[in-house]
Amino acid sequence: MTDFTLETFPNPRPGRRYSITHVNHEFTSVCPKTGLPDFGVITVRYIPDALCLELKSMKYYYLEYRSKGIFYEAVTNKILDDFVAACSPLEMTVTTEWGTRGGMTSTITAEYKKPE
Amino acid sequence: MTDFTLETFPNPRPGRRYSITHVNHEFTSVCPKTGLPDFGVITVRYIPDALCLELKSMKYYYLEYRSKGIFYEAVTNKILDDFVAACSPLEMTVTTEWGTRGGMTSTITAEYKKPE
Amino acid sequence: MTDFTLETFPNPRPGRRYSITHVNHEFTSVCPKTGLPDFGVITVRYIPDALCLELKSMKYYYLEYRSKGIFYEAVTNKILDDFVAACSPLEMTVTTEWGTRGGMTSTITAEYKKPE
Amino acid sequence: MTDFTLETFPNPRPGRRYSITHVNHEFTSVCPKTGLPDFGVITVRYIPDALCLELKSMKYYYLEYRSKGIFYEAVTNKILDDFVAACSPLEMTVTTEWGTRGGMTSTITAEYKKPE
Amino acid sequence: MTDFTLETFPNPRPGRRYSITHVNHEFTSVCPKTGLPDFGVITVRYIPDALCLELKSMKYYYLEYRSKGIFYEAVTNKILDDFVAACSPLEMTVTTEWGTRGGMTSTITAEYKKPE
Amino acid sequence: MTDFTLETFPNPRPGRRYSITHVNHEFTSVCPKTGLPDFGVITVRYIPDALCLELKSMKYYYLEYRSKGIFYEAVTNKILDDFVAACSPLEMTVTTEWGTRGGMTSTITAEYKKPE
Amino acid sequence: MTDFTLETFPNPRPGRRYSITHVNHEFTSVCPKTGLPDFGVITVRYIPDALCLELKSMKYYYLEYRSKGIFYEAVTNKILDDFVAACSPLEMTVTTEWGTRGGMTSTITAEYKKPE
Amino acid sequence: MTDFTLETFPNPRPGRRYSITHVNHEFTSVCPKTGLPDFGVITVRYIPDALCLELKSMKYYYLEYRSKGIFYEAVTNKILDDFVAACSPLEMTVTTEWGTRGGMTSTITAEYKKPE
Amino acid sequence: MTDFTLETFPNPRPGRRYSITHVNHEFTSVCPKTGLPDFGVITVRYIPDALCLELKSMKYYYLEYRSKGIFYEAVTNKILDDFVAACSPLEMTVTTEWGTRGGMTSTITAEYKKPE
Amino acid sequence: MTDFTLETFPNPRPGRRYSITHVNHEFTSVCPKTGLPDFGVITVRYIPDALCLELKSMKYYYLEYRSKGIFYEAVTNKILDDFVAACSPLEMTVTTEWGTRGGMTSTITAEYKKPE
Repeated sequence: MTDFTLETFPNPRPGRRYSITHVNHEFTSVCPKTGLPDFGVITVRYIPDALCLELKSMKYYYLEYRSKGIFYEAVTNKILDDFVAACSPLEMTVTTEWGTRGGMTSTITAEYKKPE
Repeated sequence: MTDFTLETFPNPRPGRRYSITHVNHEFTSVCPKTGLPDFGVITVRYIPDALCLELKSMKYYYLEYRSKGIFYEAVTNKILDDFVAACSPLEMTVTTEWGTRGGMTSTITAEYKKPE
Repeated sequence: MTDFTLETFPNPRPGRRYSITHVNHEFTSVCPKTGLPDFGVITVRYIPDALCLELKSMKYYYLEYRSKGIFYEAVTNKILDDFVAACSPLEMTVTTEWGTRGGMTSTITAEYKKPE
Repeated sequence: MTDFTLETFPNPRPGRRYSITHVNHEFTSVCPKTGLPDFGVITVRYIPDALCLELKSMKYYYLEYRSKGIFYEAVTNKILDDFVAACSPLEMTVTTEWGTRGGMTSTITAEYKKPE
Repeated sequence: MTDFTLETFPNPRPGRRYSITHVNHEFTSVCPKTGLPDFGVITVRYIPDALCLELKSMKYYYLEYRSKGIFYEAVTNKILDDFVAACSPLEMTVTTEWGTRGGMTSTITAEYKKPE
Repeated sequence: MTDFTLETFPNPRPGRRYSITHVNHEFTSVCPKTGLPDFGVITVRYIPDALCLELKSMKYYYLEYRSKGIFYEAVTNKILDDFVAACSPLEMTVTTEWGTRGGMTSTITAEYKKPE
Repeated sequence: MTDFTLETFPNPRPGRRYSITHVNHEFTSVCPKTGLPDFGVITVRYIPDALCLELKSMKYYYLEYRSKGIFYEAVTNKILDDFVAACSPLEMTVTTEWGTRGGMTSTITAEYKKPE
Repeated sequence: MTDFTLETFPNPRPGRRYSITHVNHEFTSVCPKTGLPDFGVITVRYIPDALCLELKSMKYYYLEYRSKGIFYEAVTNKILDDFVAACSPLEMTVTTEWGTRGGMTSTITAEYKKPE
Repeated sequence: MTDFTLETFPNPRPGRRYSITHVNHEFTSVCPKTGLPDFGVITVRYIPDALCLELKSMKYYYLEYRSKGIFYEAVTNKILDDFVAACSPLEMTVTTEWGTRGGMTSTITAEYKKPE
Repeated sequence: MTDFTLETFPNPRPGRRYSITHVNHEFTSVCPKTGLPDFGVITVRYIPDALCLELKSMKYYYLEYRSKGIFYEAVTNKILDDFVAACSPLEMTVTTEWGTRGGMTSTITAEYKKPE
């Protein structure tokens, strides 16, 4: 996963503070404890600075997790870190919502704000 | 698209600060990456100054995007810029909501405020 | 339309600040651009001062628009102006919501406040 | 209607500030303009002081309107005035919601606050 | 209204028995008793034979009722008769649903079957 | 109530077997046991023969019950009998649904079929 | 409970086969096993012959169960038997639906048909 | 009812400020005016201090009202007073919602706060 | 459009009678009357025989309509004919639902059954 | 239950303040008063510090309550205490919602905040 590059394109309106939200309804990774697949909904909301995340490239990025063993908490934070690294936004929030495991459902939310 | 002219008509009540909202449920453009069509819902809300946007002319303006390759972020900001240029409102917000692509849905929101 | 008189009756409780809301679900006028009919829902909310709007008279007032060519923005502001002129309320808000035209739905909101 | 007496009973807990709400789903009066019946839902919410309104007596009070010609605005304010006169509450709000007339539905809200 | 001609076009698939439904959410006519407007939703469902009803022409046909005084029952049957005369379908059902009048809502349904 | 005459008008399409439904959401009569008002929703569905029931006249017919003491079962059957007598339909069904009394809600349904 | 008499009144339309439904949303009796109260919704639907059940009398009949220890099955059948004995209907169905006990909800249905 | 003792048990976590809510869907008492039963839903929310209300004991406490004639307002305040007396909470709110009587539904809400 | 080839693949379980449904929420074609775009939802349900329709190929097939002027009725039947020709199913139903035009919404349904 | 150890793993992003929510829809314990099973939904929301709760270990932790007699209030606080002890979060909230007992449903909420 380390060698994958997220594509970006120049923000078409860099001077304006506006928001972009992408919801991935088809995320899947693997539970590092049981080896069983996890299914989640990933919501990414950000205010771009100079760059925007390219949608198709995001899709391929998400596919990288398909056979990766990783905890919910780690996925959430890694996505936030990788997307922040790729497009250096003014603000970004990542929320992950996970299907039933052992009778339990889970939700994780993490935020980033560019230092002024 | 450069030669299309958005029609306006004089605000019937220019001294009053009131709001106008037009929601286009049938917008379509083309993805510049894949060449495949995109489908969106476009919500425009504004407070007019001297001019109002004419509805039928808005419909024809939107039709111009039908075979145009353009990113979500660029559509959103271009609509805002073109409508602001056409009617010079006191305030305007454009929100675009996009159908499922690669399991993902997207929403973009941009705002304009006339300098006082 | 100029010769129609909106009826009013004395506010039965002029000293008390209370609110009155009338929603007309069956409004229709004519598009000045196409000559085709428009259909809308008109919501009027006001705080009366010395006079109240009489309901049946409002119904006949609305009927005057049935064959009148007029823009959404003008209808909204004219209703507000005519009702304010008729009953001189402390406050009044008019909201008009319009059926689909060219794939678009529209909503206009205008407010009045009596100068103190 | 002038000779009807609303019954009250001593507030069982006069020192405590608590709220009482009675919703009458079966109110009917007569339109003074057309002589035809009106149907409404009446919501009364109050904070009692020394007295509470007795429920059965309220029912008989409402029945008095069954053949009385009276405007929505007057009903709403008269109920508020009569109930305030009967039980002298700390606060009271009366809301009346009326069935469709001429394609229009109406809602009136009036409030009372005991002077401190 | 007698001089209006409903347009049709050849059924693109005359040998197949299939159904077409058009729902008009914006129908209005005039009550012959009171002179006041009526508002209804008109649903037309038919199985075409050699001809189909053209949509825009239906819209203009409906507009003819805008200032015509006619009972619900007559509207329903006249639409059925006119549409049957225009396109001679294998089967047709017309349902009309009407807004509140005097506390009452109404629905009329009429059917036609081509004699074999 | 004996002197009231229900108005009818000639069925505009007497040869066709079609259905008419009128729902009165604002019916009220008086309980013969307690003298207190009852509130109901009355649904009348019929297939006309030579005559149709006129809507405004039905409204005035219903108003006759406003101060009449009568059981649910009797109201239901009397409406059916009176409407059948007035317009002699091919078929008619009357359903009455009544508000809560003593924690109970009630529904009565009666039908008529013209003898062949 | 043996000395209570259910009141009836003559069926206002004895020759017609029509249905009457009364739903009691506020029934309560006592569990004979635990001595604790049970709460149920009782639905009675019947086709009257010569007599109808009087509503207020039904209410008082139901009150008799308030401190009576009796199983769900026995309540259901006893109500059916008592109502049949009182008004000798052509048909009657009694359905009882009971609140949660030990995580379980229950429904009992019993029917009667007059022998021809 | 004076001799009944509400049971409590030591708050398992007395130092922590946390909330407990119990909703009784099956409460019944008697109207002091008519002698007829009333049915209500009772919601009790409190923040315990040293003691918690034992659930089964609450159930038996509520049963005491089954044949007691008492007004809605008095029930609401008495439950609040009795529960406060039994467990001396930091805060408590009691809300009672009552079934239809004379076409009216009622809701009463009372609150207690331990003096600091 | 004549030169486009719909792809298929062998039914993986040809002996079993099972159903397949594909819903396209993003269909658009052009009105042959006005030249303006139409937007519809296309639902295809079929029972395969020896072949199944390949999904990506269906997407490209639908894209062919994007600039084609064609009536609702013709689109519906042409899709049915083309899909039947491509995969020769045991049964197929095509339903098309269209956005508001002139206050009207439309639905067309056509079916095919393989001759036995 | 005393010998069970909740597993944790290092917070993958310890410097960031983000939230984690786990909802257990299948919790069961035993009522200490009656010996009968209780069923509840347990919601745990926390902001981790150095450690995260491992999901499978939480499941086994919850299973320990299956034959344990314990009050709602004690379960709620014990879960909060045990989870706080295990992972020492910055903040944690536990909400437990319980099925119907004696006609009553219950909800308990407790919170923890790490001292600064």
